[in-house]
Amino acid sequence: MKTLIDNIDIMTMDENHTFYKNGCILIEGDSIVYLGDKSGLGSGTEYQSRIDGKRKLALPGFINTHTHTAMTLFRGQGSDMPLMSWLQEKIWPLEDKLKETDTYWLSLLAIAEMIRGGVTTFSDMYMFMEGTAQAVRDSGVRGILARGLQGPDDNSQKRLQETRELWQDWQDKAEGRIQVMAGPHAIYTCQPSYLLEIAELADELDIGIHIHLSETRQEVEDCYREYNKSPVRLLYDLGILDRHVLAAHCVHLSPEDIDILAEKEVAISHCPISNLKLGSGIASVGAMLEKGITLSLGTDGAASNNNLSIMKEMSMAALIHKGVKEDPTLISASKALEMATIGGASALKMEDKTGSLTAGKKADIVLIDTGSPHYHPAGDWASHLVYSGYAHDVDTVWVNGQKLMEKKQLLTIDLESVYSQVDAIYRRIMEREQPKEDNKKQ
Amino acid sequence: MKTLIDNIDIMTMDENHTFYKNGCILIEGDSIVYLGDKSGLGSGTEYQSRIDGKRKLALPGFINTHTHTAMTLFRGQGSDMPLMSWLQEKIWPLEDKLKETDTYWLSLLAIAEMIRGGVTTFSDMYMFMEGTAQAVRDSGVRGILARGLQGPDDNSQKRLQETRELWQDWQDKAEGRIQVMAGPHAIYTCQPSYLLEIAELADELDIGIHIHLSETRQEVEDCYREYNKSPVRLLYDLGILDRHVLAAHCVHLSPEDIDILAEKEVAISHCPISNLKLGSGIASVGAMLEKGITLSLGTDGAASNNNLSIMKEMSMAALIHKGVKEDPTLISASKALEMATIGGASALKMEDKTGSLTAGKKADIVLIDTGSPHYHPAGDWASHLVYSGYAHDVDTVWVNGQKLMEKKQLLTIDLESVYSQVDAIYRRIMEREQPKEDNKKQ
Repeated sequence: MKTLIDNIDIMTMDENHTFYKNGCILIEGDSIVYLGDKSGLGSGTEYQSRIDGKRKLALPGFINTHTHTAMTLFRGQGSDMPLMSWLQEKIWPLEDKLKETDTYWLSLLAIAEMIRGGVTTFSDMYMFMEGTAQAVRDSGVRGILARGLQGPDDNSQKRLQETRELWQDWQDKAEGRIQVMAGPHAIYTCQPSYLLEIAELADELDIGIHIHLSETRQEVEDCYREYNKSPVRLLYDLGILDRHVLAAHCVHLSPEDIDILAEKEVAISHCPISNLKLGSGIASVGAMLEKGITLSLGTDGAASNNNLSIMKEMSMAALIHKGVKEDPTLISASKALEMATIGGASALKMEDKTGSLTAGKKADIVLIDTGSPHYHPAGDWASHLVYSGYAHDVDTVWVNGQKLMEKKQLLTIDLESVYSQVDAIYRRIMEREQPKEDNKKQ
Repeated sequence: MKTLIDNIDIMTMDENHTFYKNGCILIEGDSIVYLGDKSGLGSGTEYQSRIDGKRKLALPGFINTHTHTAMTLFRGQGSDMPLMSWLQEKIWPLEDKLKETDTYWLSLLAIAEMIRGGVTTFSDMYMFMEGTAQAVRDSGVRGILARGLQGPDDNSQKRLQETRELWQDWQDKAEGRIQVMAGPHAIYTCQPSYLLEIAELADELDIGIHIHLSETRQEVEDCYREYNKSPVRLLYDLGILDRHVLAAHCVHLSPEDIDILAEKEVAISHCPISNLKLGSGIASVGAMLEKGITLSLGTDGAASNNNLSIMKEMSMAALIHKGVKEDPTLISASKALEMATIGGASALKMEDKTGSLTAGKKADIVLIDTGSPHYHPAGDWASHLVYSGYAHDVDTVWVNGQKLMEKKQLLTIDLESVYSQVDAIYRRIMEREQPKEDNKKQ
């Protein structure tokens, strides 16, 4: 099966930021087999379907490197509350009522929202992961899944075992769209001994580590109190950073921390909106970029964002640092687009597969509808996308060569079923009476 | 002609933030004649058309209190440049080529974008205003128009005269949808003597004043150097603030400035995205709210934003201050919604006409389509709108009782004509050769 996207403007996001005006993209199976000027395509090339790219712009799919998809259930719960009250009074009591089987539908709701916003790959961490894996399988998106880990406590070995099972059951499954990572929640929920066990497992399975790091001022201060060093330095001294590590947030970093992250090639998931909404602060992205650190973008969960739009994150990433530093040259639109695409792929060590439009890579492609007033007059596309674009501009999405959305209609997810299942879960969870213990987890 | 919006959830944004579940709104002519529970509507009430409000949410139209609509032409020009190079190298040379007749189409493009995003009233300042007034008349939106003023110089009396003519030609015209304000550009482009002349004219015509104020650190420093006082104090001492004044930006304020603005009941147009994008900084909105100052939201022009979405501004207004102050309780979603609606009406002294949904006010109504994944599960609507919503969620828009958009289709603006006219202007302006002097203005 070959599909030709014809007559299309293409932002490849490759190393040279190559742009093709009225080019074409040929998809065969799960991959891009040709991309460029139409003249370079053999005249006898056959294809089974043709998409007209008029008033569209092709981009690599966006990559959301830090989220908790099942938390769509908590969207809007306790907005504008202080962080600890929000967690203790709102989120944790609700999470206690969550069942493993709920997460399929909750993650599917998140995936529907993400596909509509052009996200083709996401990296998730949560206390349940089986339902999320099934939702990735069924929806056609790409998912990098980590079972959240904390310990040591009575269940910490069981959680490690679940990471192993997740890997056994899902690594490279669903046409290779699923990868597994180890997910130590944070240095304040994992003791050093447990972090070392996790690292050992990661090495054994040859997988990376996804962790929350230096998200709040409190985390850093507590770490100094307990270990007399920063969270980054703690992980460094433990040797945790000697492997593929994806660190989410990294809001409160010292210059030494930034040097360590650069030296150890730790990839960052910058989550500017969640950091603002929870009052965590503003990450030093400019300083990290200067040191050559790999930056990607994450939405965090819907409970602390409250949506899952990487286009909104890239807009925020390009705006916030200019304002805080009073320097309009910081984080250009192009740089924000890199963070949303190839930066995400690099952060997940998937740059051979996705993150840019290049012949030979998987066909993870987004078409943006540029017909709306806010894209006129046509001009600098990077600027238009980052400063003027919305998730709803995404018109058509392919992942791994499969079309998941066309003309803004989802093709693999029945939204009405998702809504009705999610609404039922919501009603159950919001009931005043505590339900019986039932498949409860931590 | 009566229209019933039936079976609709209503956020009135009235003083009590009254919310109706499955209520109804009856529009007659240009006004809301009933709003509330269906049971309160007389059983024999007749209407000529009925709109089903299922999966919709009714809100007062959004109000954009500071923009330059004709600047859509410069969308994306010189993004990520330092402010003065951006103005001197990009914007001003292009503005020199702009003709009065261009602005009808450029403003119409802006109005199309704003209606699609639920903006029903906007307050504009620019060096041309006739074309903008015509665009307001033809599109059906509400416009508060100020001819930008600077001086004294050779043309400053002519500009004052044009303000008078604008008032004569357009005040209360277009079914009362157009109001005129006096538009001194800023304290660094208007000398005190000229500011006083403008104030005199404003008093004579009984109109308010719309001015840029304390936008950049540079403006404040220069003002201290020249007058040994802050821009706010300068206006106060001149007596300019003794009347209705709408001040845009107000990023760099001292505590004394804030006290003055509160004492004089100056209304603020908070433009968070423009302030970030141009590296101007972050306004002390929390401190202004504490003093009871009227806060509204503005997009500024498309050249420095780059879109015209008040939903995006309210999201930014609710997020940015939390992050900068590391306090998630600052500027709640509700407060941001107030700024986008009733705050805007108060800032423009139009709270008797618009800004909330109340029987007796003009029918400036927006229906939000809540059927998208990012509004699920249903919960706290203020939070959903502010943190998860997009301009594209706006489904139907009435201004002054006239339906301007239905099911996301504009009813009064032919987008294809607008695009073709704007594209022609864009091609002319971007030509390397300077065109002949032709209706050029300052």
